[in-house]
Amino acid sequence: MTVATPLEDAPAVPASGNRRSDITRWIAGLHDELTSFFGRLDRGGTFTEDRWERPGGGGGVARVMTDGVTFEKAGINRSAVMGVLPPAAAIRLGGRGAATGSTHFFATGVSLVVHPRNPKVPTVHLNVRYFELTDEAGQITDCWFGGGTDLTPFYPHTSDARTFHVALRDMCARHHTALYPAFKTWCDQYFVNTHRDNEARGVGGIFFDHLRAHTEAYGLDHDATQAFVTDVARVLRHAYEPIVDRRRNEPFSEAEREFQLVRRGRYVEFNLVHDRGTTFGLQTNARVESVLMSLPPLAMWQYAPRYSPDSFEARLLTMLEPRDWVTDVAGA
Amino acid sequence: MTVATPLEDAPAVPASGNRRSDITRWIAGLHDELTSFFGRLDRGGTFTEDRWERPGGGGGVARVMTDGVTFEKAGINRSAVMGVLPPAAAIRLGGRGAATGSTHFFATGVSLVVHPRNPKVPTVHLNVRYFELTDEAGQITDCWFGGGTDLTPFYPHTSDARTFHVALRDMCARHHTALYPAFKTWCDQYFVNTHRDNEARGVGGIFFDHLRAHTEAYGLDHDATQAFVTDVARVLRHAYEPIVDRRRNEPFSEAEREFQLVRRGRYVEFNLVHDRGTTFGLQTNARVESVLMSLPPLAMWQYAPRYSPDSFEARLLTMLEPRDWVTDVAGA
Repeated sequence: MTVATPLEDAPAVPASGNRRSDITRWIAGLHDELTSFFGRLDRGGTFTEDRWERPGGGGGVARVMTDGVTFEKAGINRSAVMGVLPPAAAIRLGGRGAATGSTHFFATGVSLVVHPRNPKVPTVHLNVRYFELTDEAGQITDCWFGGGTDLTPFYPHTSDARTFHVALRDMCARHHTALYPAFKTWCDQYFVNTHRDNEARGVGGIFFDHLRAHTEAYGLDHDATQAFVTDVARVLRHAYEPIVDRRRNEPFSEAEREFQLVRRGRYVEFNLVHDRGTTFGLQTNARVESVLMSLPPLAMWQYAPRYSPDSFEARLLTMLEPRDWVTDVAGA
Repeated sequence: MTVATPLEDAPAVPASGNRRSDITRWIAGLHDELTSFFGRLDRGGTFTEDRWERPGGGGGVARVMTDGVTFEKAGINRSAVMGVLPPAAAIRLGGRGAATGSTHFFATGVSLVVHPRNPKVPTVHLNVRYFELTDEAGQITDCWFGGGTDLTPFYPHTSDARTFHVALRDMCARHHTALYPAFKTWCDQYFVNTHRDNEARGVGGIFFDHLRAHTEAYGLDHDATQAFVTDVARVLRHAYEPIVDRRRNEPFSEAEREFQLVRRGRYVEFNLVHDRGTTFGLQTNARVESVLMSLPPLAMWQYAPRYSPDSFEARLLTMLEPRDWVTDVAGA
């Protein structure tokens, strides 16, 4: 598979050119790894690739699987875009450059969502990204990493949530013991449908942003930070693959499939109403098909569904309440 | 069927109490008429009713049909709510009261969306509403009507768009010849997925807001304005019923059903990303199930679908480009 770097055709930025080129290759490499991983995990489906350019600068590569054995839809997208930020957007981003008037930006990342066919297999999302602000002379005034991964089950298998979180805790601990607790809490606070009485999208995972090179809080320099983010992009082989392998052949009922579609409706609501990446993409001139690649192939809305207390649906909703999945498996 | 007026238990507002009570009964009456109309039009399905109260004041009555013969889902909601507007919201609403410091509001309306089973039958939406601002002493400082109806076909029957628009034009013309052209244009500008390269949600209809009692532009007084809005609420017997009757038994293919689900996905996108009523409802403490009652029972997202130029899908997309449906039926 070729490693596309649409960015490399872009005008060079003097002081940051090499880093941008390196970072772009790094993201393209992770994109290829994740494509191979999900191709193998699916056991039969293939990805089709679609390259796009952004009028304002940069572009991306979208890979989508729709003929999967395990996955009804899998989308893995990478992009590298650059341009000038409106001052309000720079301030909202919270970069140091906003204070110094720097509004040139460069952003690259890889993002994926997979929607399994079998409702016993959870949906997973993963994203890693790098953001850079430069001044008029092309000097970097600020740069940071962001990312995360979260699990959205449709059936109350508490052991799956535990597998996911233990793998994340173990991976994080190799870099700093403070990372998992901090980023787990951040995740619980982010993936929430506030308009649904604060119902969580799933059982969480980790989420982080503004993770700076030479980061103050964790004593990680640029390379160590990038190494952590690389491990985040590779964690699904431990955090997700075992879950898929133990659930992929489980039988399921029509009621379980229907509930999966209703929960996917909540996923649509979160992505269109709350997700910052999606709403930012829709408000700017991002390519809409790539921004909305995360939406499920099929989703359902029911009016005010009610579930009896012992039903699998009610137990799934209980499972969505944030908890310590690593040390506390009450209800498992 | 009983006519519920949750508002009537609310504290009386001295100078506007009678009008509010009258308006609330008027909306409840239209709600009942529309429920009867769609019950009859469906030819077999029944509505279940759900009453809700809003902590800040008021409440509503939701009626939903999910067992329909013709309609896969039909939702007709009325509400009457009151409270204190944040100043920013008052200014955004554009009422005169904002300038005079009046931030007490009262709003009542009826809103419906129906999602037919057969993709040859279009979806229709209709809403009429009344909004009132009062000062501390309960005196009305401003009040207005709003509303509209729009048609969303899934198959390129241009004659259906013509039936719909001609009925709207004829109904409007009984009140003022300027109404249809103005409100048709307003509708074309409102129901647009700007993030989808300005693709329209459907073939439009009419849309209006801030239609004031004693309206300046059209010489209609409060009663004449209310009579017009009443006719809007009753127009579907001429604008929509003939379309349902001529399409309900048409055969359809799997590809036509699939395209219907994809177009419903666009409907979800408009409602969650752009619709002012929905986004306002999600940001405030409105009852989420009522706010999202308009969402389809089932929707589909495909990655970057492409259609050959002569396909029914391509012809439907062409049909969505705004045009004069009353005098120009090019492409019919």
